[in-house]
Amino acid sequence: MNKIAVLTSGGDAPGMNACVRAVVRTGLKLDCEMYVVYEGYKGLVEGRIEQVDRNFVSDIINRGGTILRSARLPEFKEESYQNMAIKQLKAYGIDSLIVIGGDGTYRGAKALAEKGIHVVGIPGSIDNDVCSTEYCIGFDTAQNTICECIDKLRDTTASHQRCTFIEVMGNKCGDLALYSGVAEGVEIVISQDHPYDEEKVVEKLLSLKGGKKKHSLVVVSEKLFPNIFEFVKRISEKTGIECRAQVLGHIQRGGSPSARDRILATRYGSEAVRAIVDGESCIALGLFGDEIKHVPFETAFTMEKNPHKDLIKILKLVNR
Amino acid sequence: MNKIAVLTSGGDAPGMNACVRAVVRTGLKLDCEMYVVYEGYKGLVEGRIEQVDRNFVSDIINRGGTILRSARLPEFKEESYQNMAIKQLKAYGIDSLIVIGGDGTYRGAKALAEKGIHVVGIPGSIDNDVCSTEYCIGFDTAQNTICECIDKLRDTTASHQRCTFIEVMGNKCGDLALYSGVAEGVEIVISQDHPYDEEKVVEKLLSLKGGKKKHSLVVVSEKLFPNIFEFVKRISEKTGIECRAQVLGHIQRGGSPSARDRILATRYGSEAVRAIVDGESCIALGLFGDEIKHVPFETAFTMEKNPHKDLIKILKLVNR
Amino acid sequence: MNKIAVLTSGGDAPGMNACVRAVVRTGLKLDCEMYVVYEGYKGLVEGRIEQVDRNFVSDIINRGGTILRSARLPEFKEESYQNMAIKQLKAYGIDSLIVIGGDGTYRGAKALAEKGIHVVGIPGSIDNDVCSTEYCIGFDTAQNTICECIDKLRDTTASHQRCTFIEVMGNKCGDLALYSGVAEGVEIVISQDHPYDEEKVVEKLLSLKGGKKKHSLVVVSEKLFPNIFEFVKRISEKTGIECRAQVLGHIQRGGSPSARDRILATRYGSEAVRAIVDGESCIALGLFGDEIKHVPFETAFTMEKNPHKDLIKILKLVNR
Amino acid sequence: MNKIAVLTSGGDAPGMNACVRAVVRTGLKLDCEMYVVYEGYKGLVEGRIEQVDRNFVSDIINRGGTILRSARLPEFKEESYQNMAIKQLKAYGIDSLIVIGGDGTYRGAKALAEKGIHVVGIPGSIDNDVCSTEYCIGFDTAQNTICECIDKLRDTTASHQRCTFIEVMGNKCGDLALYSGVAEGVEIVISQDHPYDEEKVVEKLLSLKGGKKKHSLVVVSEKLFPNIFEFVKRISEKTGIECRAQVLGHIQRGGSPSARDRILATRYGSEAVRAIVDGESCIALGLFGDEIKHVPFETAFTMEKNPHKDLIKILKLVNR
Repeated sequence: MNKIAVLTSGGDAPGMNACVRAVVRTGLKLDCEMYVVYEGYKGLVEGRIEQVDRNFVSDIINRGGTILRSARLPEFKEESYQNMAIKQLKAYGIDSLIVIGGDGTYRGAKALAEKGIHVVGIPGSIDNDVCSTEYCIGFDTAQNTICECIDKLRDTTASHQRCTFIEVMGNKCGDLALYSGVAEGVEIVISQDHPYDEEKVVEKLLSLKGGKKKHSLVVVSEKLFPNIFEFVKRISEKTGIECRAQVLGHIQRGGSPSARDRILATRYGSEAVRAIVDGESCIALGLFGDEIKHVPFETAFTMEKNPHKDLIKILKLVNR
Repeated sequence: MNKIAVLTSGGDAPGMNACVRAVVRTGLKLDCEMYVVYEGYKGLVEGRIEQVDRNFVSDIINRGGTILRSARLPEFKEESYQNMAIKQLKAYGIDSLIVIGGDGTYRGAKALAEKGIHVVGIPGSIDNDVCSTEYCIGFDTAQNTICECIDKLRDTTASHQRCTFIEVMGNKCGDLALYSGVAEGVEIVISQDHPYDEEKVVEKLLSLKGGKKKHSLVVVSEKLFPNIFEFVKRISEKTGIECRAQVLGHIQRGGSPSARDRILATRYGSEAVRAIVDGESCIALGLFGDEIKHVPFETAFTMEKNPHKDLIKILKLVNR
Repeated sequence: MNKIAVLTSGGDAPGMNACVRAVVRTGLKLDCEMYVVYEGYKGLVEGRIEQVDRNFVSDIINRGGTILRSARLPEFKEESYQNMAIKQLKAYGIDSLIVIGGDGTYRGAKALAEKGIHVVGIPGSIDNDVCSTEYCIGFDTAQNTICECIDKLRDTTASHQRCTFIEVMGNKCGDLALYSGVAEGVEIVISQDHPYDEEKVVEKLLSLKGGKKKHSLVVVSEKLFPNIFEFVKRISEKTGIECRAQVLGHIQRGGSPSARDRILATRYGSEAVRAIVDGESCIALGLFGDEIKHVPFETAFTMEKNPHKDLIKILKLVNR
Repeated sequence: MNKIAVLTSGGDAPGMNACVRAVVRTGLKLDCEMYVVYEGYKGLVEGRIEQVDRNFVSDIINRGGTILRSARLPEFKEESYQNMAIKQLKAYGIDSLIVIGGDGTYRGAKALAEKGIHVVGIPGSIDNDVCSTEYCIGFDTAQNTICECIDKLRDTTASHQRCTFIEVMGNKCGDLALYSGVAEGVEIVISQDHPYDEEKVVEKLLSLKGGKKKHSLVVVSEKLFPNIFEFVKRISEKTGIECRAQVLGHIQRGGSPSARDRILATRYGSEAVRAIVDGESCIALGLFGDEIKHVPFETAFTMEKNPHKDLIKILKLVNR
């Protein structure tokens, strides 16, 4: 009989609760003993571990955030910390660990796997910045949240015939910007996969100025400009167009998960337990097309993200 | 230079406007003359055709329904009606037609293609009941709408410790029921791919009666029971549990499209125009994995829908 | 020192949790001992009583339904049941009771007050069918839920140029129908305060038929027609217009409460405790204008609801 | 027969469209000729005036923003600009003007009234910063939008056990902060009516640190701190608690209006036309309790806003 623990680590993402639920329920159904770890690796090291039954995860499938909470522990890179974690797991007789998070989370997981724990990683990140999958838990919900926000900004932008720059998350991955740019039909997308320098932005906005439609929307990935407010101020001065900057911020992390995220999270969670029961370890799950695949941690960090050339082409064909 | 018309037909679906927008914009970018037809085949036969520019589709990407409206015309199966349509198209010099709808829409489209019009079909249906694709425009939004409704029903169901049966759409396709059943973690899913007779429902509900959680949710595909209210009344009597039926109805058709539906619709729309410009015809577009493929109408109607054995297995592992 | 219990009874309404929170928090702040009763009068009779601290009500202000659950107990009209309730309260030394519900709930409360318990009633009902207040907890949220649903139905109704009849709740009170009819600008409102017989509906729809706008919306209060589906079918036949019926049902009860309902619920809950601490009893709280007043139970049941003549006049001036 | 024009001015607010609709429809029903002015006083001076029929305002009751658009024209304080406006109105034979906006808008309106135009002002402002009313159009929707955002922030704040500071709009009026603080049950509200200096914030957060609940929320009115990000950074350093700042920004202006705002806007719009038809002028409409009153412009600017002592008391009783 397996004794399996599950934790969430890194930034929280909508759907993590649905995933924890699927892990716990599948484990119990397959006669495993199920444990949760609170507050990620920090809680693991400190022994915040608890055995749970199926009611523990009742009525959480639709809740945002993570009931296991999350925390950062940069020291977990050090072997001494990893050994503390192993010791805590051993104290409970836990042989297997499922971690939900991003690449940073996986690095810790790999270290534990190399010390004999059966470990499976599940990609959870609104930024979709995990190399070993096409879709992370939370990415779909974050897109919908961004769209709801931009739909609201569109109202006031159009009423005042302005140009609004919207900074979205992504943590060095341009997917949120690109996807929401296509979904909103915005005038300009500025992302890692679709760069745009200041001069080009000015030029584009000036070219639109004479048209019938007087307002415009620009989506920008975070971390591309040192200060979005100053950037937008300069654009305003150079174009003579009234421009505003809006940083969406942590709103993007919250909210009830979308149907797609709940289903994907449930599939990932159930599959992770089955992989462990089948004796697998040291792998990350990834969605490719509509299929969940097992990616060894060894190759997981060096895979290349899709640069979405098709979407960028569509952007050019469809948007102004 | 192509002259391309676009119409929406059959039941409306969120994302149809985003698709029309992508068709018109891509066409204009590729130097085509673009036309819209109002009210589907009915409007085509009656000549409700209009040339449009890019502003025609401004600010509709986030709107539910279809600005081209839809209508049913059963007589379009008859050649005389098809000839009227051809005549109208010829009058405007239109050589190509993009239709957004379901299998019924495709049959009309195929007939026109055989009479020399370049025709491409795009799957738009909240029911996801089109054989030649894995995902139709509107299916994702409808799932999210269903989830929002069931999240609300969960509140009152739990407060009163009842069992609520929710009838969802699907038109003989069980996808909406199955997906939303997984997304909501309901106690029972009754769908075409996951049948459940009355006795089994009674048995299951009785087996849950003793548990800690006193309320339960059941999702049912439309058209499986002649009268859901009488069915639920009988279950109530046989189990002694207070059961309620809720028919979600046309709410499922409306609302602003999800990010995913807007993007999928934009991809379909842009691809359809490019297929026509490339000289293709008599095909339906379909999403398989994450790729859009061209399916000849000839094979489109005989393809088999995915019975979702993986999801059904997960349902058994994860839900009560 | 007061020992105060709180319960929710009758149909659940969004905002009840916010109210329970305010009751518990205010009570603790004013040095009372605070108790909750689960499942309304049924739980009271059966002794499902629990002392609570401030953390019991953490993070529930935004939750729909009622964490105290609700249940019906028609037998509570009988004195023997009331005496059981008194006995249970005495067993805990509880001297005061706050009930959240409607007129039915108040009748039970009045009986307990006459037996020496300090009792205050708070109006919670999406139907707004409580005589002794202008606004019940839940009414504002239900209006917004109805508007979201009708906004969705508007999309599909317009796309197909139909007429959709929407049946809303109200339990013999026409407020939900009238308010949502004004908020949606529908063509016809049929409510207790604004009756409309079959012939008049037919006449009105026929008069609109020639206009530019081809679709229309009709809001109908529940319980006015024995069978809304048959009613709509007859209208369809008599007018030649494609009509559909949509029963919104229990969706209207659920969901996160609106800001207004959370604030109103918080004001009511806090005021109820202060009234008890001030030695008051046998009263219901009511909102009049923007002020909360104390209405003796004696007069509470015979007050007349506002027939909303001003809104009905506006309906005639503004809607088609 | 009256010839009445309507314009929206200042910041846009959800419900302005519902109000414009009610103005146009009521006017037509009372046999007036109805005109709209685009882009506020700027459009008025430049003559962007258009006569409209009832279809002009079809299907806008649920739309955010203002289809009449808005613009700022500081020069409208000068008599020469006011005279240009009068000239434009005279050119169309327009004798009456309804303006929807805030105190700034009213000042322009008063000037025109003194030059012989019949003018009525309607309060439209999400900030609720208009002296002559208790409720402006848009305030209710903005509260709900803020609540949706904070509900999302609560998820991620709780998952990471942080403290999140949320800056809301208000333009020197603390109502949005106070109302949403009560509606969200936040730990601290910092507003014009409920000031809180840096030391007090530090003290309060430190006092909460030992409790069971590790996360907290703080709502702050805009314009109280020169730089919210630096303020929060200092709090973080002084308390040792991980604090984040989130500026909600223009999201608060957009979105489909709430039921309450649609109804209030409809009442205001209809009443404004009736006031003009009755020969009134130089007044602003205000909601007091549940009644719409006529406030002469003369007294409108010197009325005192409600400091909401009751809500502040409740805050102290109910929130941590």
